[in-house]
Formats: sequence, C-alpha cells, structure tokens
Amino acid sequence: MKDSSKRRGSAASPCAACKLLRRRCAQDCVFAPHFPADEPHKFACVHKVFGASNINKMLQELEEHERGDAVRSMVYEAKARVRDPVYGCVGAISSLQQQIDDLQTQLALTQAQLVRMQMHAHNYHTQH
Amino acid sequence: MKDSSKRRGSAASPCAACKLLRRRCAQDCVFAPHFPADEPHKFACVHKVFGASNINKMLQELEEHERGDAVRSMVYEAKARVRDPVYGCVGAISSLQQQIDDLQTQLALTQAQLVRMQMHAHNYHTQH
Repeated sequence: MKDSSKRRGSAASPCAACKLLRRRCAQDCVFAPHFPADEPHKFACVHKVFGASNINKMLQELEEHERGDAVRSMVYEAKARVRDPVYGCVGAISSLQQQIDDLQTQLALTQAQLVRMQMHAHNYHTQH
Repeated sequence: MKDSSKRRGSAASPCAACKLLRRRCAQDCVFAPHFPADEPHKFACVHKVFGASNINKMLQELEEHERGDAVRSMVYEAKARVRDPVYGCVGAISSLQQQIDDLQTQLALTQAQLVRMQMHAHNYHTQH
C-alpha cells in the first residue's frame, strides 16, 4: 500500500481514475492507491469493461489489504475482454482445460506403457 | 437465435434486463434474445459486475451470431466475480495453471522412469 502523503506530491495531480472521470481526487480516493497517474491505460481498460461505478462499489466492499489483488485480477480480466470481446478470459480457461485433458491422456498412456514394461521385465526375470 | 415474434408472446412481458432496469422492452431490444424473463438471476449478475450500459455497448459492437457466446462468457465471469470478489475467474486460471505445472512434472518423471526401464531392459537383453 502506498503512503498517501507520498502519493500526493502535488495536490493538483489526480490519480488516473479521477483524471479520466474529470473529478477531484480526494485524499481518501479509493482508486488512487491502485491507479497511479502514470498508468492511464490500466484504469481506462477496467473502466471500459466494468465501469468506474462498479469498480468503486467492488473495492469499497473489500478489505483494504484485498484491494490490490482485486484490481490486478480486474485489470487482467478487462485486458482479456478488450483483446477478445467474445470470450474474454473464459477463452483462456477453455484453452487451459484442453491442455489439462491432453496432459492427462498423455500421462495415462505413459503410465500404461510403464506398467507393461514392468510386467514384461518381471516375466522375463521369472523365466530366465 | 430465438424468433422475436415467438419471444414476445405478450407485448407486456419484458425481458429480464428491461424488467430489472424498469424500461420498455422494445421489439429490437439487444438484451431480449439472451436474457429471458424466466432467468432473472443471469442478468442481475452481469449487471452487478459489468453494468447494463457496458453490456449493451459490448453487444452492439459484436456481430449478432457472436452475441450468444459473449453473453455466456460474461455470465461465467460475473458469477465467478460474485463468488470470489478478489480473484474472480482469474482464480480459476491460476488453479488450472498450477494443475498444468503438476501434470507436466508428473509426466516428465514418468517418462524418465520409462526411459530408465527401457535402458535397463536393453542392457539385460545384451548381457544374457
């Protein structure tokens, strides 16, 4: 968590959210610790997907120590939705699930091959 | 895609979105084909997370045949965010990635074990 006295070097410099929303950035602004002025794209992206009012509400409902992770996950989701407006990050979930299915099949085949080898070796040792 | 003449059995029955937003459900309502009146929770959930105005904009920017998938993925994301307000469906992505790492490690170990077995069998056959 950034120190709010530090984050306000100048009272005239609003955070990226307040700048985009053209509003006064209050000392206790809920966006300011997570949307610094030098990363305007981060807020623009979550604003486009979730809307400033929803983000505000979601952050207010969380404990302060949870907000950083919540913002990171919302930025991730929003970027995925901007990149892929139809599937968003659900596209990534499908693709990861497909990879898991493939790996599980490959693992089962390799394990079966190993069991066959072990049985073959066992039989060979018993007969010779 | 539902037939709009069928979906309006009664002109007085608005879709789930228009019902929640307390507005008139027009014949060409962008929400109606995807948010039927008998599934009010679906729209309530995406509205809470993305906001009706953003969903409207996102749907308008898509081709009609893409909108069904877009709504399904938004409902999935919104439900995940309501269930887990800090990580949303990014939590599922992390957990799937962890599963992939575990499966890859297990597969590499099994493959190494198989190679050792094969070398052992080869040496045994050569010596006997």
